[in-house]
Amino acid sequence: MNYSIIRYILGWVLTLESIFMLLPCVVAVIYQESAGYSFLIVALICFVLGTLIIRKKPKNQVYFAREGFVTVALSWIVMSFFGALPFVINGDIPNVINALFEVISGFTTTGASILTDVEALNRCSLFWRSFTHWIGGMGVFVFLLAILPMAGGYNMHLMRAESPGPSVGKLVPRVKDTAKILYLIYIVMTVIEIILLLAAGMPVFDSFTTAFGTAGTGGFGVKNSSMADYSAQIQWIVTIFMILFGVNFNAYYILLGRHKGNVFKMEELRWYFGIIAVSIGIITFNISGMFENIFTSLRHSAFQVASIITTTGFATTDFDQWPQLSKTLLVILMFIGACAGSTGGGIKVSRIVILFKTVKQEMGYFVHPRSVKVIKMDDKALDKDTVRSVSAFLVTYVIIFGVSMTILAFDNLDMTSNFTAIAATFNNIGPGLELVGPTGNFSMFSPLAKCVLMFDMLAGRLELYPVLLLFTPSVWKRK
Amino acid sequence: MNYSIIRYILGWVLTLESIFMLLPCVVAVIYQESAGYSFLIVALICFVLGTLIIRKKPKNQVYFAREGFVTVALSWIVMSFFGALPFVINGDIPNVINALFEVISGFTTTGASILTDVEALNRCSLFWRSFTHWIGGMGVFVFLLAILPMAGGYNMHLMRAESPGPSVGKLVPRVKDTAKILYLIYIVMTVIEIILLLAAGMPVFDSFTTAFGTAGTGGFGVKNSSMADYSAQIQWIVTIFMILFGVNFNAYYILLGRHKGNVFKMEELRWYFGIIAVSIGIITFNISGMFENIFTSLRHSAFQVASIITTTGFATTDFDQWPQLSKTLLVILMFIGACAGSTGGGIKVSRIVILFKTVKQEMGYFVHPRSVKVIKMDDKALDKDTVRSVSAFLVTYVIIFGVSMTILAFDNLDMTSNFTAIAATFNNIGPGLELVGPTGNFSMFSPLAKCVLMFDMLAGRLELYPVLLLFTPSVWKRK
Repeated sequence: MNYSIIRYILGWVLTLESIFMLLPCVVAVIYQESAGYSFLIVALICFVLGTLIIRKKPKNQVYFAREGFVTVALSWIVMSFFGALPFVINGDIPNVINALFEVISGFTTTGASILTDVEALNRCSLFWRSFTHWIGGMGVFVFLLAILPMAGGYNMHLMRAESPGPSVGKLVPRVKDTAKILYLIYIVMTVIEIILLLAAGMPVFDSFTTAFGTAGTGGFGVKNSSMADYSAQIQWIVTIFMILFGVNFNAYYILLGRHKGNVFKMEELRWYFGIIAVSIGIITFNISGMFENIFTSLRHSAFQVASIITTTGFATTDFDQWPQLSKTLLVILMFIGACAGSTGGGIKVSRIVILFKTVKQEMGYFVHPRSVKVIKMDDKALDKDTVRSVSAFLVTYVIIFGVSMTILAFDNLDMTSNFTAIAATFNNIGPGLELVGPTGNFSMFSPLAKCVLMFDMLAGRLELYPVLLLFTPSVWKRK
Repeated sequence: MNYSIIRYILGWVLTLESIFMLLPCVVAVIYQESAGYSFLIVALICFVLGTLIIRKKPKNQVYFAREGFVTVALSWIVMSFFGALPFVINGDIPNVINALFEVISGFTTTGASILTDVEALNRCSLFWRSFTHWIGGMGVFVFLLAILPMAGGYNMHLMRAESPGPSVGKLVPRVKDTAKILYLIYIVMTVIEIILLLAAGMPVFDSFTTAFGTAGTGGFGVKNSSMADYSAQIQWIVTIFMILFGVNFNAYYILLGRHKGNVFKMEELRWYFGIIAVSIGIITFNISGMFENIFTSLRHSAFQVASIITTTGFATTDFDQWPQLSKTLLVILMFIGACAGSTGGGIKVSRIVILFKTVKQEMGYFVHPRSVKVIKMDDKALDKDTVRSVSAFLVTYVIIFGVSMTILAFDNLDMTSNFTAIAATFNNIGPGLELVGPTGNFSMFSPLAKCVLMFDMLAGRLELYPVLLLFTPSVWKRK
C-alpha cells in the first residue's frame, strides 16, 4: 500500500472541498444569514490542511487498483466528515452522528434525512445539503481528474473505483478528457433544468437546489412536502430530468456525434426505458382509484417511478399509502436502479440484464451441456471476468443486506421499515416504506443502526468493494 | 427430448405411488374410517395407469441431463396431482387447488398448510399428509433407483436432478448402491425417532406422523398447536432429530466407517453446527424475558432454530410474537437452510459457504490482481463450473423471488406476509411471519397466489432448474 500518494490525493480532495464550500458562504451573504460563518471556518480549515498536505509530493508513484479503491473510499469518508462540521457548528444539526448521516446521505446522493423539519434550516445549510448531491452525483474524482494535472497510471484506477457500473468505458483515450466531457454534459444539463424550472415559475433558490438534487439523483428537498406542493408542470420537468440523469452518459456523448455507436442499439437503454414504461403503466392503472382523474394518477405514477428507478427519492405523494402491487413494484425498482455510467444508484440496469443472461446461460448448460456459451451485450461478447464479477457483486450485495438487516433488528422496529430503510440507503434512494416512507424520516434509528445505514450508503454509492476493502487487513500491508 | 423414456419412468413413479398409498388405507382400517376408500380408489387408478405405461418399454435409451431434469420435474407434478385426489374425493379438502397446495407442500417437505383446523381431518388423510413428507424428503427417485432394475446412463442424471446441493457425490461407485445406503440410513433414523417418541409418552399415531415430518424436514403436524402441547422431553427429541436430518448424509456414511474421510473436517458441517449454536445463543438471550426461566427460553429457541434452519417448520410457540432481532435471525436462517445432501431445503449451508468464499476471492482480485485464486472446500479445490453454478443459483433464486413478490402483491396483503410466505415456501419451511406465522395459514391467498407458491415449493425442493426447464421451449424439441 502506497501511503504517501493516498495522503497526497486526500490533500487535493480537501482543497477541492474548501472551494466547493465557498458556495454556501455566498448563499449566506445573499440571504444575510449569520450561520454562513460556519462554512467559512470549515472551508478555511480544509484549505489550510489540504494545501499543507499537497506541498509534500509523494516519493513513490507506484499505484495499483487497491490504492485507487482505498483512496476513493477514504476520500469520501474524509469529505463527509468535514462536510458535516458546518451543520454542527451553526447548530442546524447539532448532533454529530445526525450531521454525518445527513451529509453522507447527501454526497452518496441518497437523500435519506434525519430531519423532521427541513424548512427550519438556514438557507446556506439547505444549499450545501443539495449541493453535496451535485458533487457526489458525477463524483469528486471525476472532477479532480478533469481539472488537475495528475498524470500517471492511477487516473484510471480512481475513475473506476468511483464510477458506477460493471465496466467503466473511457469515452476518449485520455481519462482526463473523458472526465472533462462528462462534467461538461453534467453542467449543461443541470443549467438547462434550472432554466426550465425558473421558466415554470419555481423560486430561484428552489430551482437551484431541485436541479442539484435531480442531477445527482439525490432527492433532498427544501420543503417538508418534498415536491408535492409544486405545480404539475414543475413535477413533469423534474420527472423528465430524473429519467435523463439516470441514462448512461455514454449515450449523450454518442448523441453529440462525437463517438461512433447507435444510441438505439444500447441494450441497457432499451431495458431502462422499457422497465420505466411498463412500471408507469401498471402503477397508473393500480392507483387510478386514488386520484381525481387518469392524468393525475399518470403524473404521480411517472414521477414516483422515475424518482425510484433513478434512485433520486423525491416524492409528489405518499406512496406508502398506495396498494401493495404498486409498493412492491417500487421496491423492486429500488434494487434495479439506474443505468451504469449515470449519476443514479442501485444494482444498475446493465447488471440486471447481465444477471438475467447468466441465468439463461446456466439453463443452456442443462439443455446443451457441451456447447460453448458467451454472454453478449450490445452484440459484443462480455469477457468472463466481467460476468463473474457481476455475479459476485450480487452475492456481496445480498450478504451485506443480510448483515445490515440483522444489526438493524436490534432497534426492534417493524421488518418492512428495516428492509426498505436498507433498500433505500444501500441503493442511494432516500425514502422507503412505513416508518421511513415519504412522510417519515430516519431520526428514530439508534446510533448503531445509523452507522450501519451510513456504511450502506457509502458501500452502495462506491459499489461495495472500495468500502469493503477498508476492512480487509491484507490491504493495509506496507509491502 | 426422449419422450418414450420419460413416459416409461413416469409409469414407474405412478406404480410406486400406488403402493405408498396403501399405507393410509391400512390406517383407515385400523381407525375404522370410511374415508379410506378414497385412497384405495386412487391407488388402483395409479396402479392400472402405471403398469399399463410400463408394459411398453422405451425404444430409445438416449438419455441426457435435460431428460433427467424434465423427468424429475414432471414426476413430482404428476405425483402431487394423484396424491391430492384422495383429499378431494373423501371431502377432507374439497377444493382442488387447496388439495394440490397441501400435497405439493407435503411432497416438497414444506409443511405450509391451507387448513384452518387440522384436527378435523380423517386420520388416514393426516397420515398420508405426513407420509408425503417422508417420501419427498429423501426423494422418490432415490427410492426408485434403490429398488428398480433400471441400469443405464440415466441413473446419475435422475439422482442429480432430485438431490439437493451444489454437487452430488456418489457414496459408492454404483448409483443404485448409493441410493440403497441413503434409504437405509433414512429408515433406521426414522425408526429410532419413532421409538424414542413412543418411549417419551407420545401417542402411536402422533409418533409416526411426527417422525415422518421430522425425517423429511417437512413440518405438517396433526394438532392445530403444532408441537406446543407436547412435553418438553418430546420437544427436545424432535429438536435433536430435526438437526440430525439436516446433516449431510455423507457424514453418517463416514461415521459408519464405510467411507474414508473425517466428519469433523467437513467444512459444511462445522458451519452448520456453528450457525445453529450462535443462533440459539442469541435468540435464547433475546427472548429470555418472555418465558419463566432460561431453560424454557433455551428449549423454545433451540426448537425454533432447528426447525427453521433445517426447513422443517414445526413450532412450539408463536415466534411471530418474538422481538425483531429473533424474527430477523429466523428469516435469515430460512434462506440459509440445511446441509447439502440432507432432506432439508433452503439455499444450503455449503452454497452459503461457497458464496462467502466467492466474495473473498472477488476482493482478492483487487488486492492482488494477478495471483491465481481457487476456491477450496474441505481442502479440495472446487472446479470453476461448480463455483459459477453456485453464483448462478443465487441469481436465479433472487429473480424468482422478485417475480413471486410481484405476483403475490396483487392480493394486496402486507409486505412482510408476502415476503415470508415466499421465503417459507421457496425454502420449503412452512410457516412465515404475520398472516402466515405459526398460528396462521395460507388459506387467505388467491388461487393465482397459491399457484405461485406451489411453483416456488417445487422449484425450491428441486433446486430451481428442473422446474424452470419445463418452461423453456428449446427443451421440448424432439431432437
